[in-house]
Amino acid sequence: MPYFDAASSAPLHPVARQALLAALDEGWADPSRLYREGRRARLLLDAAREAAAEAVGCRPDELVFTASGTAAVHSGVAGALAGRRRVGQRLVVSAVEHSSVLHSATAHQERGGSVVEVPVVRTGRVDAAEFAGALTGDTALACLQSANHEVGTVQPVGEVAEACRAAGVPLLVDAAQSLAWGPVEGAWSLLAASAHKWGGPSGVGLLAVRKGVRFASQLPLDERESGRSPGFENLPAIVAAAAALRAVHAEAAQEAVRLRELTERIRSRVPELVPDVEVVGDPERRLPHLVTFSCLYVDGESLLHELDRAGFSVSSGSSCTSSTLTPSHVLKAMGVLSEGNVRVSLPMGTAADDVERFLGVLPGAVAAVREKLEAPGAATAGTAAGSLVVDALGRRCPIPVIELAKVIGDVPVGGTVTVLSDDEAARLDIPAWCEMRGQEFVREDPADRGAAYVVRRVS
Amino acid sequence: MPYFDAASSAPLHPVARQALLAALDEGWADPSRLYREGRRARLLLDAAREAAAEAVGCRPDELVFTASGTAAVHSGVAGALAGRRRVGQRLVVSAVEHSSVLHSATAHQERGGSVVEVPVVRTGRVDAAEFAGALTGDTALACLQSANHEVGTVQPVGEVAEACRAAGVPLLVDAAQSLAWGPVEGAWSLLAASAHKWGGPSGVGLLAVRKGVRFASQLPLDERESGRSPGFENLPAIVAAAAALRAVHAEAAQEAVRLRELTERIRSRVPELVPDVEVVGDPERRLPHLVTFSCLYVDGESLLHELDRAGFSVSSGSSCTSSTLTPSHVLKAMGVLSEGNVRVSLPMGTAADDVERFLGVLPGAVAAVREKLEAPGAATAGTAAGSLVVDALGRRCPIPVIELAKVIGDVPVGGTVTVLSDDEAARLDIPAWCEMRGQEFVREDPADRGAAYVVRRVS
Repeated sequence: MPYFDAASSAPLHPVARQALLAALDEGWADPSRLYREGRRARLLLDAAREAAAEAVGCRPDELVFTASGTAAVHSGVAGALAGRRRVGQRLVVSAVEHSSVLHSATAHQERGGSVVEVPVVRTGRVDAAEFAGALTGDTALACLQSANHEVGTVQPVGEVAEACRAAGVPLLVDAAQSLAWGPVEGAWSLLAASAHKWGGPSGVGLLAVRKGVRFASQLPLDERESGRSPGFENLPAIVAAAAALRAVHAEAAQEAVRLRELTERIRSRVPELVPDVEVVGDPERRLPHLVTFSCLYVDGESLLHELDRAGFSVSSGSSCTSSTLTPSHVLKAMGVLSEGNVRVSLPMGTAADDVERFLGVLPGAVAAVREKLEAPGAATAGTAAGSLVVDALGRRCPIPVIELAKVIGDVPVGGTVTVLSDDEAARLDIPAWCEMRGQEFVREDPADRGAAYVVRRVS
Repeated sequence: MPYFDAASSAPLHPVARQALLAALDEGWADPSRLYREGRRARLLLDAAREAAAEAVGCRPDELVFTASGTAAVHSGVAGALAGRRRVGQRLVVSAVEHSSVLHSATAHQERGGSVVEVPVVRTGRVDAAEFAGALTGDTALACLQSANHEVGTVQPVGEVAEACRAAGVPLLVDAAQSLAWGPVEGAWSLLAASAHKWGGPSGVGLLAVRKGVRFASQLPLDERESGRSPGFENLPAIVAAAAALRAVHAEAAQEAVRLRELTERIRSRVPELVPDVEVVGDPERRLPHLVTFSCLYVDGESLLHELDRAGFSVSSGSSCTSSTLTPSHVLKAMGVLSEGNVRVSLPMGTAADDVERFLGVLPGAVAAVREKLEAPGAATAGTAAGSLVVDALGRRCPIPVIELAKVIGDVPVGGTVTVLSDDEAARLDIPAWCEMRGQEFVREDPADRGAAYVVRRVS
């Protein structure tokens, strides 16, 4: 089964497995104890910290291990904000951060703080100058991911770090998606990451806080991990995580070239193989192993199931695949199509043949879903009145867009179609459809239930 | 190497190791994903939750897995307090709770809440009626451990739970030390525990919150684990933890009888083998595998090293073995001797021969430390003036007590010795010494530096 969802969780690296087994025997005791088993555990913990710090590019005493990448972000954001409480309460984040950062921001707001979201352009990248402009004198902390987890776009961390340094604002970098590929460049102040994304085991994250950064942990006091990560150290897993990070860094340069070529194949060939597809994310400044595209007239969940049946495990930011039934906030911030969304993230070692097989299977999978949903073909000549209303209330993504596409040919050029929809995804997907099909998105009007989306036929 | 510190961390149970290895292959993917690897991970997670819930005695949907026992306590206390914010801000805890509970209480105080500590008697047990008396109308939460982690005393959780129910106050039970031996009886509302104490791997705790208990998680929002434990699930370890809990419960009844006999041997024979020893903790209502004693005129760290050299790994609540140089808060709350403190906690499967060897080694180890410290022998006849002052300023435990013991024979019966000491342990150990040696502890006077402890020679 080709597993193409490394961005969710990478399979355990063989080195990590080996290190884990050894550490289960050698590193199960309490590293704070004075007896032999404790001293042995302490040695393992110290060695793991040194290895991880070297891979991250910081001092060992700047790095603590946490229970997950999420825990690292939560602890890092809260501690950095509290450490600069006197400066101000303003937190600046990009609009496409991981949910752990955005949920930390929400918690900050609920406690009276303010949050500014810096928007991204259509490729998912923040503009460094725009980010810099958000750094006011009362900004306590800024957060920017090293690369986006859904579309792979690499952010201008070096430039933003420089701007933060100039403004005297600490920058927290969520490096969860990129750390497998190498250290984060630039003068960041705090950095968070997650071991199971780089081939380490689950249960381990890391938080680096540079010396000199004001930090006041908001968790109850605990002696372990410099007071920044309470609870008994997850030692065998920490040992495995550090070993995996060294191992993947040794392979990263070569593997990046190889996987970049494979994802480039997907980027260029999917639009040739499948009609009505939008490949999203920055085509150049991107992670080597990740590519994302959206398919018109397809619901993400059905497409995932089709691909799963064909043996491929991928992820999706479509609304129907989230428990809240809203599309991914990343796609939303980018303003791109969210329906039929597929994220392919190749684990290191992925065979080129598997990618070819995926490209062979994909067109049939998309076609099968479209057939079931009775998606429209090419637009036909206009025959009906100058305007039409499509009632898609109560229908979920991608039906409102399918209904729109079915009737657009029924109005004359210059005529309008108004789609009534209470599906959250329609807000994103109807304008995205217009952009893809060269039609004009006129406006969104509020309605008793949902909204009315007005589209003018241009061609 | 006999490892006698199961209360810190139990060696990994063979069943846990086996389950962990299997789950590394089957359960590394994201259980919230829809593809095959994700569904398989979800099945493992659900099965682990069911097994753990059955062992705890609650419904599966009442139990979440956390990153550690400490994380479970932190999340449980904060969530339960916030859930009853409207009732009041009073938190009632016993004085001998685990540091994770007491640190949660301190965090509550720092946020404006009030904390009431219910004292314990000399055996380390709270009086249920006294605990009940602390449950006022504005009490948001009460916390009581099922059994003490340092002296093994079992708490009257059933009675206290009943009192809490009558008062309408939820009771959080820290069951970290007892869950290996079976479920906690009584109508508790919340329960926290830690897998590495029951033979599971590190990196896993559990938090049970009974239906109907008001709970408002204070952690940033996260979809996983009912929003009560953010971050990617530590799945292979969770599977291993649940398997270990089932396995140890299957062995618990038989092993409890066997280990109780072994710890009883230590309880009864240590005072015969070693002079000037106080065995602490409740002699009857106690954990089967744990026994604690303190040795006069001995520093805990040296004794631990002597025992380690002899091949035995034990723990200590002496001040010299803590990073803060204060004696264990448990021994302090009990008012017992803290110097030369040794906690023996036998892992399941401990061989009787190892316990016999320990009893063979201990007297020599204690004697070696006492010799190095020039500890006194029997009291001699009084020859000096009616009162003496011993300046032990700057000297650490057990020196102040040793100096006291050396000169007590130099004053006549009825005369006093005043010990000047700035060592935190003296506050506990000088009165404890008086009680053990049948002398009268008169009072503690404040002094420019440390305190002056006045002791009257009685015999």
